[in-house]
Amino acid sequence: MITEFCRLNDAIERVSKVINIQLNIERVSLLNAIGRVAAKDVTSPCDIPPYDRSVVDGYAVRAEDTYGASPSNPLPLRIVGEANFDTAFRYSIGPGEAVRIHTGVPLPKGANAVIMLEDVVEDKSTIYVMKSVGVYANVSRRGEDMPKGFTILKRGQTIEPWHVAALAAVGLDEVEVFERLRLCLLTVGDEIVEPSKNLDPVEVLSKGKVFSSTHYLLLCEAKRLGFLEPVHIGIVGDSPHQISNHIRQAIEECHSVITTGGTGPGQRDVVVKAVKEVGSEVVVRGIAMRPGRTTSVAVLKGKPIFMLSGFPVAAYIAFRFFVIPSLTKALGITESRNYVYAKLTRRVVNRAGYTTFVRVKLFNCGTEVCAEPLASTGSGLISTLLESNGILKLPDDIEGYEAGELVPIELL
Amino acid sequence: MITEFCRLNDAIERVSKVINIQLNIERVSLLNAIGRVAAKDVTSPCDIPPYDRSVVDGYAVRAEDTYGASPSNPLPLRIVGEANFDTAFRYSIGPGEAVRIHTGVPLPKGANAVIMLEDVVEDKSTIYVMKSVGVYANVSRRGEDMPKGFTILKRGQTIEPWHVAALAAVGLDEVEVFERLRLCLLTVGDEIVEPSKNLDPVEVLSKGKVFSSTHYLLLCEAKRLGFLEPVHIGIVGDSPHQISNHIRQAIEECHSVITTGGTGPGQRDVVVKAVKEVGSEVVVRGIAMRPGRTTSVAVLKGKPIFMLSGFPVAAYIAFRFFVIPSLTKALGITESRNYVYAKLTRRVVNRAGYTTFVRVKLFNCGTEVCAEPLASTGSGLISTLLESNGILKLPDDIEGYEAGELVPIELL
Repeated sequence: MITEFCRLNDAIERVSKVINIQLNIERVSLLNAIGRVAAKDVTSPCDIPPYDRSVVDGYAVRAEDTYGASPSNPLPLRIVGEANFDTAFRYSIGPGEAVRIHTGVPLPKGANAVIMLEDVVEDKSTIYVMKSVGVYANVSRRGEDMPKGFTILKRGQTIEPWHVAALAAVGLDEVEVFERLRLCLLTVGDEIVEPSKNLDPVEVLSKGKVFSSTHYLLLCEAKRLGFLEPVHIGIVGDSPHQISNHIRQAIEECHSVITTGGTGPGQRDVVVKAVKEVGSEVVVRGIAMRPGRTTSVAVLKGKPIFMLSGFPVAAYIAFRFFVIPSLTKALGITESRNYVYAKLTRRVVNRAGYTTFVRVKLFNCGTEVCAEPLASTGSGLISTLLESNGILKLPDDIEGYEAGELVPIELL
Repeated sequence: MITEFCRLNDAIERVSKVINIQLNIERVSLLNAIGRVAAKDVTSPCDIPPYDRSVVDGYAVRAEDTYGASPSNPLPLRIVGEANFDTAFRYSIGPGEAVRIHTGVPLPKGANAVIMLEDVVEDKSTIYVMKSVGVYANVSRRGEDMPKGFTILKRGQTIEPWHVAALAAVGLDEVEVFERLRLCLLTVGDEIVEPSKNLDPVEVLSKGKVFSSTHYLLLCEAKRLGFLEPVHIGIVGDSPHQISNHIRQAIEECHSVITTGGTGPGQRDVVVKAVKEVGSEVVVRGIAMRPGRTTSVAVLKGKPIFMLSGFPVAAYIAFRFFVIPSLTKALGITESRNYVYAKLTRRVVNRAGYTTFVRVKLFNCGTEVCAEPLASTGSGLISTLLESNGILKLPDDIEGYEAGELVPIELL
């Protein structure tokens, strides 16, 4: 029996401190970098743009030569050439001169602005400037985008498409990332059966068997996180000895192990017995969270063994709001979660000292976003995850929220 | 020169109507289904739960036998056995009887409620009930989660972790999905160079060359969408003939082609010439959107050729807010975008008839989320994407938003 439940934040703190995992560093090509975690800061080796360049099609000029220009006072400038990527560096323009220039092309020497095509009238080798331009008008300055030394990526940051683009822009074709954290999942329960098209579901279920769905939920969620490499070891019965054999092997092969099922408060509390059998130390035994309060953690050789409920919703919530924060905190990985502020359609209450997670359905109500809390019970009901698109967290120091309150919803 | 710009919504409508792509259907295992698009509705072949079952550890009873029970009036019931997955179906309980039961186990015949362990006092083969329970208390009813015929997945829906879990729960190990849409990317520009660790970036850039970054941005973004299979064909110079040769081949191999670069309003408008050369019909020539107004589309054999800017931000915005919506609309794919309502820190203005996309930086300001608009210019500046974490869309019928207004921000 669990007698004292650890507060969620304390549990995360405690577990992240005892985790001692060293992830190797590997080099990956840019296209394989997406979703991975940077192992080192990366800075730009050069100025981007590498020179002042035109951002429009027009004429490179000396800004001062255009001062006072207007449709009623067109100022003539002599066209002395055309700057493209091959020729731009050859030109140098003096007073009264202009060079035709294209988007992206370096500004010729002597020029300090570009006047747009539509602001001049061209006549043979002369343009008549109709509009004054300021210094560096229509020019992108050297280093304006990413100066040399600019930090493109920070150690611990998850690599997004724009990071990849920025790395490419400075000529890099690889990036150093942490190896993925290998996460072994073990499903516990005498009644659990792997789904298969060769089985008649009605017949299987009528015998008191249950198809394993929780491990699919966790595997799929883990696969969405680029720093994890999840593997399902398999399904094992309620025998502590069998379970401990599997855990012993998994802890050799993986950086972390997750078990689901076998954590009930009654006689089926077999997983805790099993982790003790392998010599690991139980560091968290029950967390004051709903759902998921049977969640426990043991540590062996610095590697955490997370013991989660077999119920899909309870396991999912514990995985997302406890396992992942514990791992990212221990490893120094920056995690970004997406929130929406939404108006609660009805009151939700918390239990003293507990962190409660309420599935909500977000919808547009007029010009606002509303959040309809779904049943807070039913942690065995997968359909409530299909229905919901967000999670409202009630921290352990909050008694609840009133109807109409604007509350942060984490998007699923 | 582009003379008339099509409104964004009209452009999406027009393009989605002329697209005529048939995606094949393929079967994938559950673990490969994540992010893919369901090709057919999937319904549950059975009731989940398949029977009334206990959601706690306790005693299966007849609710009526507990009526009136309290600590001062404990009601005795005779324990006639213990229900687990193997034995539950054998029991039938009568008046005055109770059966010990575990979480998830089917309710024995005759029982219609479960009383929790903590609400009884056990003495040898008798329990004393201290609390009355209602009919079906602590029981999950047959079909309560997913009744037979329940729609787990709809055709066109993107498959999320909970869909996979629900499919597994009803015993399915595969799902029919649409084949991925093959998207060929072609980078156009004489000055474009593939990034490589064997090149000195300072030297390359000083010669007026530019490293290809836009195609990485689009490839990475496309890879995040499970319905796409993006491929980079390569980099080709500004010659319409060369470009058309590449497009001719790409259109055979892919369902859709994207070109970046070579769409400038000046002489470098080589891609439109090239698509005409391959015999395709230009259906959109310029869109009233900022950035990205040179965006154009041609169609050949029902396959769209999207011509995007070479500038990373302009290409990204056009890809995300025009290409993807056009394709998903044509294919009947349900796309879900994540929004946050945030308070604008300063005024943003729109241009009449244009849809403007403003990069914003979201941050917490007190108990609210604030959105700081970043420069709306600089579509060549990748660093603005690194800085921003959301996009504010100003639709073409809105003049702008005031400082302090609550506006929807699409999360990046």
